[in-house]
Amino acid sequence: MSELSNIENTTICACSTGNNSGAIAVVRISGPQTLEILSKVFTPKREDVKLLEVPGYTLLYGYIYRQDSTLLDDVLVSIFREPHSYTGEDSAEISCHGSNYIVRELLSLLTDNGAKYAGPGDFTKRAFLNGKMDLAQAEAVCDLISSETKASHDVAMQQMRGGFSKELEAMRTNLLQIVSLLELELDFSEEEVQFADRKELQKLLDDSCTQINSLISSFKLGNALKNGVPVAIVGATNTGKSTLLNALLREDRAIVSSIAGTTRDTIEDVMNLDGVLFRFIDTAGIRATLEQIEMMGIERTFYKIRQAQIVLMMLDSTNPDGFQESIQSLSKKINNSEQTLFILLNKCDKNTILSHADKTAPASNEDLVEQVRALAADAGLTPAAILPISAKQKLGLDVLESMLVESQKDLNASGNMVLVSNMRHYSALKDAYNALLRANVALGEHVPTDLVAQDIRESLYSIGTIVGAVSTDEILGNIFKNFCIGK
Amino acid sequence: MSELSNIENTTICACSTGNNSGAIAVVRISGPQTLEILSKVFTPKREDVKLLEVPGYTLLYGYIYRQDSTLLDDVLVSIFREPHSYTGEDSAEISCHGSNYIVRELLSLLTDNGAKYAGPGDFTKRAFLNGKMDLAQAEAVCDLISSETKASHDVAMQQMRGGFSKELEAMRTNLLQIVSLLELELDFSEEEVQFADRKELQKLLDDSCTQINSLISSFKLGNALKNGVPVAIVGATNTGKSTLLNALLREDRAIVSSIAGTTRDTIEDVMNLDGVLFRFIDTAGIRATLEQIEMMGIERTFYKIRQAQIVLMMLDSTNPDGFQESIQSLSKKINNSEQTLFILLNKCDKNTILSHADKTAPASNEDLVEQVRALAADAGLTPAAILPISAKQKLGLDVLESMLVESQKDLNASGNMVLVSNMRHYSALKDAYNALLRANVALGEHVPTDLVAQDIRESLYSIGTIVGAVSTDEILGNIFKNFCIGK
Repeated sequence: MSELSNIENTTICACSTGNNSGAIAVVRISGPQTLEILSKVFTPKREDVKLLEVPGYTLLYGYIYRQDSTLLDDVLVSIFREPHSYTGEDSAEISCHGSNYIVRELLSLLTDNGAKYAGPGDFTKRAFLNGKMDLAQAEAVCDLISSETKASHDVAMQQMRGGFSKELEAMRTNLLQIVSLLELELDFSEEEVQFADRKELQKLLDDSCTQINSLISSFKLGNALKNGVPVAIVGATNTGKSTLLNALLREDRAIVSSIAGTTRDTIEDVMNLDGVLFRFIDTAGIRATLEQIEMMGIERTFYKIRQAQIVLMMLDSTNPDGFQESIQSLSKKINNSEQTLFILLNKCDKNTILSHADKTAPASNEDLVEQVRALAADAGLTPAAILPISAKQKLGLDVLESMLVESQKDLNASGNMVLVSNMRHYSALKDAYNALLRANVALGEHVPTDLVAQDIRESLYSIGTIVGAVSTDEILGNIFKNFCIGK
Repeated sequence: MSELSNIENTTICACSTGNNSGAIAVVRISGPQTLEILSKVFTPKREDVKLLEVPGYTLLYGYIYRQDSTLLDDVLVSIFREPHSYTGEDSAEISCHGSNYIVRELLSLLTDNGAKYAGPGDFTKRAFLNGKMDLAQAEAVCDLISSETKASHDVAMQQMRGGFSKELEAMRTNLLQIVSLLELELDFSEEEVQFADRKELQKLLDDSCTQINSLISSFKLGNALKNGVPVAIVGATNTGKSTLLNALLREDRAIVSSIAGTTRDTIEDVMNLDGVLFRFIDTAGIRATLEQIEMMGIERTFYKIRQAQIVLMMLDSTNPDGFQESIQSLSKKINNSEQTLFILLNKCDKNTILSHADKTAPASNEDLVEQVRALAADAGLTPAAILPISAKQKLGLDVLESMLVESQKDLNASGNMVLVSNMRHYSALKDAYNALLRANVALGEHVPTDLVAQDIRESLYSIGTIVGAVSTDEILGNIFKNFCIGK
């Protein structure tokens, strides 16, 4: 592995506590020259300490001096000896005062004495290359750090602790056994020996397929936990979709981060409601009349609708004449058996029946709700609820939000289940699955053994890329570039 | 001290690495129940470790479990035993993954088990109350963290290491000796004994005055190092002062932070030029004709001019007729013997002689420069330079900046000098000085001994407030509220 030889002789350093000024900052250094470099910039207070010889898990107080012997800072240094460190190498963590100036100078001192600045994820990459964790575990470290909810934390922690890897390993062992049997036959192919019981092989392959398929299926949940449950806000133009998005992402929100969408015209943002992360997606308005040309223009909206787990269909309650057309046209785009649908009668404050004063959901609007219920039924839709709201006046939003949270109550119950939450893993599993399906069919059709073995090898390869049993610099590069510096 | 008894039985916790998501975060806990609380949330990996009995400077790897026994994180814990810790109490630093969720949950676990959330500066306040450092040193911790240049770092470090305190201590010892001698006389006052040689006392007081005065004088430098060298940009309206400010604080600036001014209408911002921190102050435009009523309106501008160490006087080079009036009126406000003056001929790009292409300072404009030089001489001003510039086209700014840096080259040469950089210390020293002056005069005028002693006691009190030899909850509150949480 070329990466490993690249790093073997270098010692890297970086600040591991972000750019923000805190009370303290931690600078990490890792590599074979760690103690040698440290001994040039750090003087322990205890004079009897021989820095080059200290055992791992030593904690020292002392001083960082500049090259002109002036004092830069007093620090605490934790020393770890290979292999008992995060990276598996000799390493140290220098806990200094949280001043940007001190951190900058300290890193300069370390690099002046032979260390290199670490790139994003370089410490974790070393942990992987030194066999301290597999690739899926390494990726989980990144997920763990960016976790904002209990659910996403638990998925990442499960993966980091090796739960997912263990499951994949079992699967690989299984497949390796099959392929070995098949390849043993190949060695004796001229003698037309058949070592493996085909029925049994088929059974083993079936089992593996089921197992992989269940992991693939878990991605929907895993992805929702990690990136937020996708909620598409759809409807005709001017029904108040963007107003609703803004209201749902209100200023006092717990968490909000921008997620760059694949389609630029779609606005997405995540929001933590009662511990559940939702990803609200504002879509382009759909004209009530869907002509062929317009269809193309709003294809990306439909793409987002298909991706969504929850669809919020907005109707303009001041224009009941448009209800039927909106519901009819959207019904074709919604898979109501898999997607949860809420129909929202917006602008309900414009109707007279409302009670503005207490800011609760409007008391009535019953006629409209009933009318919509009938139209939805006609279109084959079973909405989870039909709610009169006013996005502008923030009426009825509390009810909507608690219904959204309620609809996802199973999310947090996922407990210790192994879930796929990483798009790379998901793709690899799909590739593995497709190769296995081919092998399975081929086996039934008495295709030559070497072709069947080839398919299974392909499947093994795909699974192997997940944990990094096989990896390339390109795979590694893509993974670790998303890490923060200092991890 | 009431604060001390308040804290004696509490254990506090906070995240010490800021809010930013980094690779790791450090949660600090300090107080008598540190190990007890820690033992409820942290399980060391090494099973033979008895957490309640570990010695100080122990570094442990292990697991943080939630109350339902699920794993929150794997962490490194550094344990310190009183008095060998930052606060002087039992304390621990928990180094966890840098996820906001984990930090939040970990702090919840700690507080659920009896710890209290620490307020700003609470750890350092404990260090002070437990005698680990004096008040001036504690304040230096805060300064050290916010230092952005070598110079401000060195001032803070010098103060934190006790250099300033030592000087004050020597002064206090001196004064205490004088006052003891005087008070001894008082005890025998009926016998009209005179123990102290008045001449010698006078000499001692003189020395102390000189010493305090030199510290007071160092504030100008200390303050410039800490808060930036104050540079006032002044001139008539529409001479381009704000444009110059924006150009000097260009986007790719090294550091910029807003400093809330005492006068709201003045815009201030700091900028690190070549390691020297400048505080540029944009002032309201001064009308060329200064009438009595207008004078009042721009009094705050004049206040800022008086505070400045460097004055940038802006003239509109397209309006040479206004030069004389501008220079004359401003000359009255500038103390040219103490302040460095630069006269800037702005909008020089509007004059034909310029070389735009290479963006260097305009080659000529010599006539205008000579004209201004003569007018300045008439007004009794000796500008350090007269520079044609264009703030808008960014012409000549490089020259201006390097001249600014050059004018402050002594700043970084301050080396290990003890400098006063804190406004609170400065005020206290001035109070101490004034009281000593009174004592000195009184001694000369044979005022009764007890009144002289009283003045010296007052001076001692003021000096004592700096290191915290005397302190009140109010003083402490004012100091520590400016700290960050977790320090």
